[in-house]
Amino acid sequence: MKVLLVYAHPESRSLNGSLRDFTVAQLEAAGHDVQVSDLHAMKWKAVLDADDSSDRGDDAPFNASLASKRAFEHGTQSPDIAAEQEKLRWADALVLQFPLWWFSMPAILKGWVDRVYAYGFAYGVGEHSDTRWGNRYGEGTMAGKRAMLIVTTGGWESHYSARGINGPIDDVLFPIQHGILHYPGFDVLPPFLVYRTSKMDNTRWGAVRAALGRRLDGLWTDSPIRFRQQNGGAYDIPALTLRADIEPGRVGLGVHVEGGGGSEIS
Amino acid sequence: MKVLLVYAHPESRSLNGSLRDFTVAQLEAAGHDVQVSDLHAMKWKAVLDADDSSDRGDDAPFNASLASKRAFEHGTQSPDIAAEQEKLRWADALVLQFPLWWFSMPAILKGWVDRVYAYGFAYGVGEHSDTRWGNRYGEGTMAGKRAMLIVTTGGWESHYSARGINGPIDDVLFPIQHGILHYPGFDVLPPFLVYRTSKMDNTRWGAVRAALGRRLDGLWTDSPIRFRQQNGGAYDIPALTLRADIEPGRVGLGVHVEGGGGSEIS
Repeated sequence: MKVLLVYAHPESRSLNGSLRDFTVAQLEAAGHDVQVSDLHAMKWKAVLDADDSSDRGDDAPFNASLASKRAFEHGTQSPDIAAEQEKLRWADALVLQFPLWWFSMPAILKGWVDRVYAYGFAYGVGEHSDTRWGNRYGEGTMAGKRAMLIVTTGGWESHYSARGINGPIDDVLFPIQHGILHYPGFDVLPPFLVYRTSKMDNTRWGAVRAALGRRLDGLWTDSPIRFRQQNGGAYDIPALTLRADIEPGRVGLGVHVEGGGGSEIS
Repeated sequence: MKVLLVYAHPESRSLNGSLRDFTVAQLEAAGHDVQVSDLHAMKWKAVLDADDSSDRGDDAPFNASLASKRAFEHGTQSPDIAAEQEKLRWADALVLQFPLWWFSMPAILKGWVDRVYAYGFAYGVGEHSDTRWGNRYGEGTMAGKRAMLIVTTGGWESHYSARGINGPIDDVLFPIQHGILHYPGFDVLPPFLVYRTSKMDNTRWGAVRAALGRRLDGLWTDSPIRFRQQNGGAYDIPALTLRADIEPGRVGLGVHVEGGGGSEIS
């Protein structure tokens, strides 16, 4: 199988660098093909702007969506964007690896998403009708591919627990796992987390590697998070609210996972 | 009063450009001083890396936190970072304005946070003890200042409602409002949202301006979101989990807002 690892850390001589090297070695030892997009090494352009296509040509106001759509259709996207899209088409699985900075991904990785996820590629795909609202949230260009996050954080696991002050890690990562990965069609595996990164020693590093190794070995067989399909009948269209008889009276991010719960409306 | 507006949109001839101009005019007409950080116009460097300080000097591995701490203490930060910190010190209120791209801020604004929020400035402040875990979540450098988001999105309001497929907007914005604004001490006002931006006409634009005008007039008097103080006794230290007798049996992002609810543990 083929794996694209998008790596967003500024220093290879780091915990993240070691996790990346371990991941590549483990996957290759199992016979998989791996490509790494090392965004800092590539000097990835983080900022989406009018320079992202070669055929702007007029003085019309820049509209990010429309410019993306035209450039994707006409083959006038910046070559760095087209190359990353080609890697995504090639891959059977995508791994995004990053340190959690301010409760989200570093800017360089957000800029990879902002620019590579073109209109017609990652969104704006499929028909709208009484029963469909485009190919998204479980359908789309990435349908049939798997995705997983590898995330490091300085905070403690308890700080990201169900009642932890930073918010439950599943909720903190929802905009990424549901909004960036499930949206264009990926099956999203549970994230691999390393907490409290300042307290790493050889014993713990051995345990972390062993746990990550098991997750990489299970990349094709582990069960994905059961995010609901948008067009499967669970949501009213076009309101895109969960059908009243599913998890009745409950709200929150958890209702978008089958069997995931959610809170009672207060 | 003094307001810093950090504006992150690539095109001034846009809805966001009009919202920015209206905001500046409205605040100035009320007698306030306004500075605008127009990140695209400034060609803001989005990527945090070793070039962000002038005194790295050796071949040690780059550690983002430690490099930020040293550069902040020694006055060797990149001048663009120091200038934004000075604007934050000057301001009584911060407004972050951006289009919601992939359920978060555009990379250029995330990179403003990643780089300007130095160790010793926005985090790593205050003492750790049995009753305190640094000055954060309601305390810190920004204590006494107010903050508000102005966010546009192509999606419909129902898509971001309590049972909407994108997640409730309060939950989608939690990593920003709680994690980026409440963390260094800001009092966070409810966000100003403009949904379904492709359906804007003159009538609606008049209503949007009027509603935004009221919010800007209330910048000093409207009630902030009641995010809990970390060190006020509501959280066990160092686990930083909500004390068992507060919202007992409930979980999720809402429990971190006084009276905000949260879900039952299932």
